[in-house]
Amino acid sequence: MTQPAYDVIAIGNAIVDVMAPCDDATIERLGMTRGGMMLIDTEQAGALYDAMGPAREISGGSAANTLAGLAQLGAKCAFIGQVADDQLGEVFAHDIRAGGIAFATPARPADPPTARCLIFVTPDGQRTMNTYLGASQFLPAAALDESLIADAAVLYLEGYLWDPEEPRAAMRRAIGAAKGAGRKVAFTLSDGFVIDRHGVDFNALIAAGEIDILFANEHELVALTGEADFEAGLAALAGKVQVLVVTRSEHGAVAVAGGERAAVAAEPIEHVVDTTGAGDLFAAGFLFGHVRGKSLQQSLHMGAICAAEVISHFGARPEADLQALVAEKLS
Amino acid sequence: MTQPAYDVIAIGNAIVDVMAPCDDATIERLGMTRGGMMLIDTEQAGALYDAMGPAREISGGSAANTLAGLAQLGAKCAFIGQVADDQLGEVFAHDIRAGGIAFATPARPADPPTARCLIFVTPDGQRTMNTYLGASQFLPAAALDESLIADAAVLYLEGYLWDPEEPRAAMRRAIGAAKGAGRKVAFTLSDGFVIDRHGVDFNALIAAGEIDILFANEHELVALTGEADFEAGLAALAGKVQVLVVTRSEHGAVAVAGGERAAVAAEPIEHVVDTTGAGDLFAAGFLFGHVRGKSLQQSLHMGAICAAEVISHFGARPEADLQALVAEKLS
Repeated sequence: MTQPAYDVIAIGNAIVDVMAPCDDATIERLGMTRGGMMLIDTEQAGALYDAMGPAREISGGSAANTLAGLAQLGAKCAFIGQVADDQLGEVFAHDIRAGGIAFATPARPADPPTARCLIFVTPDGQRTMNTYLGASQFLPAAALDESLIADAAVLYLEGYLWDPEEPRAAMRRAIGAAKGAGRKVAFTLSDGFVIDRHGVDFNALIAAGEIDILFANEHELVALTGEADFEAGLAALAGKVQVLVVTRSEHGAVAVAGGERAAVAAEPIEHVVDTTGAGDLFAAGFLFGHVRGKSLQQSLHMGAICAAEVISHFGARPEADLQALVAEKLS
Repeated sequence: MTQPAYDVIAIGNAIVDVMAPCDDATIERLGMTRGGMMLIDTEQAGALYDAMGPAREISGGSAANTLAGLAQLGAKCAFIGQVADDQLGEVFAHDIRAGGIAFATPARPADPPTARCLIFVTPDGQRTMNTYLGASQFLPAAALDESLIADAAVLYLEGYLWDPEEPRAAMRRAIGAAKGAGRKVAFTLSDGFVIDRHGVDFNALIAAGEIDILFANEHELVALTGEADFEAGLAALAGKVQVLVVTRSEHGAVAVAGGERAAVAAEPIEHVVDTTGAGDLFAAGFLFGHVRGKSLQQSLHMGAICAAEVISHFGARPEADLQALVAEKLS
């Protein structure tokens, strides 16, 4: 097995976030579930956008956010995801490439358009997401560059993208390519609704040893295992993957690997501005530590530092110099 | 003369800002003039975008930024400007309408696309702007709703838009409509390059009494009057317009009206993040005071408060509640 050229290659939704602050009454009036993620169609997207205040556009997408963090930390990364041939597609492609990430998936013709996520951020920093998947859900298996996948130490997959059929098939093929090349597969469960719909798939992948590193938050852990609480869920899953990482919002995070258990507190920050991307950036910090051979404890700490940075400002992509931040906090 | 339905109607560029932090070496390497504004064509826009780091998109446009501030302060506003029928055009139209501003100029077909301004922000908060005017420069005189112009207390015009031919003709017609209805005309000089090219026009408009309220920064004041310094420039212009407002960056601002002179210091802020929109928001605060019958001194202070808010974060549109801010600081 040769030394891989990339640290991490990810397959995920190629989304531009459209973000605006809003008050709690707006969340209620629009019938949204605070803190949740809802898939919306063209009509709903139009109606919600009309109801939204002045916004700003910042590239997003769960796995793409994780790569942005990883690349900033110094990892060599590549992304596979589907944009349309339109202005938001150009924005997404520019931002990911400008972050130093290889991205070569060709754009589809502009109908449907590039995915966007309408994110309403309440004064407590909580984000409520409404995702119009557009082009993103049509990532074909043919778009996969299997030699590229074989050339990355870790293949990182976003659970959100397991829902639409074409990308699911692409991801299954990608897992085969990674495993065939002796690489690790990391998977993030993304959201409760994905587990509701595809929990059987996920448990089957885990049972078959297809997932080496699993990221979940505590709700997802409980949902996937069907256990009553966090500890029971952790006990049920811990032995089934090489590395299990569970984030617990303000309660920090726990990881279990090879019988070792480590925990980290949430990194203290002055003011939570926008929680969008917290889990994505936690994964970035943790994975960076992992691929660089850091201890479980140190990797968790790096995750916590990156998550704290991203929730201290609007948008799910890092703004501060994560390398400097990690160097400072870990010293 | 009936009571106007709008406080301010503005004609300006309909631009989405594409903003990214950068270091000073990048400004030099790309041959840009720190703090300046340069018009760029499609090819330059592509090359500069490629050289730009991960960015975010926030609606901009000088006069549109001013209206965003005015509307937030409680003024009733309308905007006239040209977008293309594309995603950035939707973004611009959404943001201005979501700010409570009437905007009914029909989008043009999507070639050329909606204007964008590539803004490089150095660590000191200084912005260097590269504007691709696209659709914005094709605002036809036919797009003017003269009854709407007659129905606003103040017509606010952006000097930047005097440069392209079609909008210049539209603005001349708008001045006629406003004057015919007994309304005031406010004009911002925008930039040195506009004065280089159209200073003769501007001086003629001023001499003819077509401009009632003139906004300039000190460089523009000197450039327009041809005088040696700020004080001489002020003396040369002060008697020629009803209200003259000159901003002086960190040195505050001066206004002269009806023989009265007032000055305000810059509002102290902790950290200048991004100076984009400082002048635009100064104009918003000042104009709001002016249309609400505040004193020259109070109007200047409101301008300084709004300018300080907008330079404390990325983007040229206000983020904090300007009404609350002004109420707090003026009390």
